[in-house]
Amino acid sequence: MTPEFTPACPLPITDYPHVLLAHGGGGRLMQQLIEKVFLAAFANPPLEQRHDGAVLEVAGRRLAFTTDSYVVSPLFFPGGDIGTLAVNGTVNDLAMCGARPRWLSAGFILEEGMPMETLWRVVQSMRQAAAAAQVQLVTGDTKVVDKGKGDGLFINTAGIGVIEHELTINPSQVQPGDAILLNGDLGRHGMAIMSVRAGLEFETTIESDCAPLAAPVLALLDAGVEVHCLRDLTRGGLAAALNEIAGAGGVELEIDEGAIPVTQQVQGACELLGFDPLYVANEGRFVAFVAAPDTARALGVLRAQPLGTAACRIGAAAKGTPGLVTMRSRIGARRVVDLLSGEQLPRIC
Amino acid sequence: MTPEFTPACPLPITDYPHVLLAHGGGGRLMQQLIEKVFLAAFANPPLEQRHDGAVLEVAGRRLAFTTDSYVVSPLFFPGGDIGTLAVNGTVNDLAMCGARPRWLSAGFILEEGMPMETLWRVVQSMRQAAAAAQVQLVTGDTKVVDKGKGDGLFINTAGIGVIEHELTINPSQVQPGDAILLNGDLGRHGMAIMSVRAGLEFETTIESDCAPLAAPVLALLDAGVEVHCLRDLTRGGLAAALNEIAGAGGVELEIDEGAIPVTQQVQGACELLGFDPLYVANEGRFVAFVAAPDTARALGVLRAQPLGTAACRIGAAAKGTPGLVTMRSRIGARRVVDLLSGEQLPRIC
Repeated sequence: MTPEFTPACPLPITDYPHVLLAHGGGGRLMQQLIEKVFLAAFANPPLEQRHDGAVLEVAGRRLAFTTDSYVVSPLFFPGGDIGTLAVNGTVNDLAMCGARPRWLSAGFILEEGMPMETLWRVVQSMRQAAAAAQVQLVTGDTKVVDKGKGDGLFINTAGIGVIEHELTINPSQVQPGDAILLNGDLGRHGMAIMSVRAGLEFETTIESDCAPLAAPVLALLDAGVEVHCLRDLTRGGLAAALNEIAGAGGVELEIDEGAIPVTQQVQGACELLGFDPLYVANEGRFVAFVAAPDTARALGVLRAQPLGTAACRIGAAAKGTPGLVTMRSRIGARRVVDLLSGEQLPRIC
Repeated sequence: MTPEFTPACPLPITDYPHVLLAHGGGGRLMQQLIEKVFLAAFANPPLEQRHDGAVLEVAGRRLAFTTDSYVVSPLFFPGGDIGTLAVNGTVNDLAMCGARPRWLSAGFILEEGMPMETLWRVVQSMRQAAAAAQVQLVTGDTKVVDKGKGDGLFINTAGIGVIEHELTINPSQVQPGDAILLNGDLGRHGMAIMSVRAGLEFETTIESDCAPLAAPVLALLDAGVEVHCLRDLTRGGLAAALNEIAGAGGVELEIDEGAIPVTQQVQGACELLGFDPLYVANEGRFVAFVAAPDTARALGVLRAQPLGTAACRIGAAAKGTPGLVTMRSRIGARRVVDLLSGEQLPRIC
């Protein structure tokens, strides 16, 4: 390799000389890390779209390409495990590019001493999740690290999907007036993990909403709905997703607290533990930004899908202040929905 | 997800109730893990080719898709670091599918408390390696795990390459009589890592051979050489690569010890530390199986490439016993070159 000028590590990254948990939390510190380190180093058009995946062109056909590592703790939780998460999480990022998910890779980092039975169970979950999401796991890799240098099992999956329509779907397409649709209630995944970690017993178990979202997304596209942007509500929850889109799309977003479904059970757990459901991670929820005239039709399409029966309109894009997200509370006051520094719940996915 | 029958964990995996370092070592235990757990769960044609990557078809164009996680220790070593490895390793797996590497994803798993400066240096290495290999890093992910639950930095990269020729390149294409060509001397990467770990001082530093191999591979293909199979010589070294190909291709492979280049320095380090260069990992070396009549031309093409100046013919495929690899020693005796149970050097990549 030819010697090359290596720029110095930039501010404000040097304000944090060591990596914090918050750098992986989906909040402001992670945004800074991405902007100042990764985007600075790897500048190119697909990366700069800052979408859930890159859109590439091969032989006149557009493909989506995405990756996620999964480090959730504990490995098993009500409603899923790291294996279901590793398949559905990446399937969902492809779906958010408007692509039909097709192929996944899987990279396993095992800690020496992990029970083989645990790996076996996780792999069976991945097999079932891949079958349900209609994707093939076509290539993989296994590494083992010494005991004490990992945490049982980390999984990376990358995915390729095929884009079968002509729309451009990313934050830059959001227009003032677009309706913001949500496919169901918020907060189940985060609260399912948290209740296991805290050893809490509620009257009934809160199960993760972990599920593959390609079917409702493709249903919208097949119906010809004018979809401008899609985003699943993982780390940082609805609040982080809306802040990212408002910033990248240069619009203000206004949502209505009364329109956002949260089950009593999740609301109760959030109050008990001091969380705000707007910031809690989901693994089966997404927002769709659609052209205002298509709102009713899009809701009809979503509600006909098993993963959209509770779909609703939670707000709209506006000219206003680019990057700002505001919420009208149940009593009518408006407040800013800001990004947190990090995630309230580390290692949620 | 529909409830489904989950088969019990299979023998002989249950002979090893816990994950061992050797399960990631590129040897027999890793082969068992792949066959009994991963292939059993995810059976599909691309995966069953057991190549360095999957070959997929999109819009009449063949793509290669591959992934690797990198857990090398230490993160920095003579001749490279985890960043150069994470780019070149995945670029090379694409090249071994006969593809032109185009796009990479990167998933970072950071340990809380890791110096930000370390991440910065690694990302700069990745940037330079990606530029040298002419690939774009187009999508990524960052996770942070608690202190003591990782080891500084793990990186996963997945890659997509485009196949621009009509050949089928994988172990099933190897024919008795095919020449086995090697692009240079063996053992540098493993010995570079080992000398750092052992704190050894040789007269000169052994540097890793870590390099992108797409240029010599594409030169062979552009010249119209009839290439049947390609394999880079990473974990488990030349011995593991040949055993895998002999098994998957159903041929016997015969190599000639005297034809295999190893520098005096690497040979000396191996003798000092009790390693066999045939089993030591490389990150810039590959074997090409080519039709016998193309041997001289292929060597000419390789030797004109910066990464093939020392290219040589080290043996040939034969009918013989499917799966067997034998070597004629310098004194003329023949011995079996077997797979080890695991890697001599854990966490080499």
